[in-house]
Amino acid sequence: MTKRPRQRRGAPVIERVLTEALEELAAVGHARFSIPAVAARAGLNKTSVYRRWPTKAALIGASLAGALGHDAPLPDTGALRTDLLAFVAAAAAWAESPLGMAVLRTLQAEGLDDAAMRELLGGTLRRRTTGPLALFRRAQARGELAADADVAMALTVFAGAIHHRRFVERAAATPAFLRRLVTLVTDGL
Amino acid sequence: MTKRPRQRRGAPVIERVLTEALEELAAVGHARFSIPAVAARAGLNKTSVYRRWPTKAALIGASLAGALGHDAPLPDTGALRTDLLAFVAAAAAWAESPLGMAVLRTLQAEGLDDAAMRELLGGTLRRRTTGPLALFRRAQARGELAADADVAMALTVFAGAIHHRRFVERAAATPAFLRRLVTLVTDGL
Repeated sequence: MTKRPRQRRGAPVIERVLTEALEELAAVGHARFSIPAVAARAGLNKTSVYRRWPTKAALIGASLAGALGHDAPLPDTGALRTDLLAFVAAAAAWAESPLGMAVLRTLQAEGLDDAAMRELLGGTLRRRTTGPLALFRRAQARGELAADADVAMALTVFAGAIHHRRFVERAAATPAFLRRLVTLVTDGL
Repeated sequence: MTKRPRQRRGAPVIERVLTEALEELAAVGHARFSIPAVAARAGLNKTSVYRRWPTKAALIGASLAGALGHDAPLPDTGALRTDLLAFVAAAAAWAESPLGMAVLRTLQAEGLDDAAMRELLGGTLRRRTTGPLALFRRAQARGELAADADVAMALTVFAGAIHHRRFVERAAATPAFLRRLVTLVTDGL
């Protein structure tokens, strides 16, 4: 235990295992991820980990679900455009972080054929979309946004453009890029 | 040669190798791709393949560049919205095809740390964006679209939303989804 970072010593075992699982995933990727390695990181016997998460997919899914669930608080600047700029900046920073990259690379590629992980991640993503919707609801309450605005598509477009910029165009989502993205989504071509 | 499909027998050697390389990539993925396997598919000695493409990255890059360069002709329906609907339908169909999935999965994940491939794919992507721009230029010539419309961001948004739908949300890009996407991009929230 003396080698564990101080802030983790008192963390409940479940949280500690999920944190270490996510860091292992970020470090080695989905294909080389292993439960014994996570158990060693967490200072536990591997059977203790297998008892709660019997498969690699279950442990990865639980750790990703936890990470995706702990988003930063939603911005509330009083105006839709500034709310959206703060939201996409946080989303882009997360996509650039080691943990964000591990999550997205698992979602995009290696986990694709794993039904159990697909189920876990699908639920996680659905939960993730309920938070940002509040940002649009506030704009609708202020009369800034039509009641029938396609906010679900806007969220898909934000996430898609940021991930595409990072993983396909291989460029940084700069503040200028994010401003152009928000402008296109709010105003259209 | 008798085992090769009839339509490929007369194809120039380079084209045949690049086609077989892409099919091998779609079948086994980037990590297990090998030049000797491609040579066997093409009915060539592996040294003939190595002579032109000395590394796996060079051969994959050339085959992806060829596939990405052979997009369907751009739609020209006379109106921006119907042009865009046809364009995103073709892009979504390509992303769902085995070859499109192989290309996108390589771009998104495994090729990420390979500098030679990044260079080749970056150039390919830049070339790919010159075609669809013509579609917007025609709309601008017709007076349907402002001269300063952010068409580059629109292309990023189309590609990003379609790939995100397929690889992260893990759902089909249905005609209804594509209509909503085009509406958001043309009209905004």
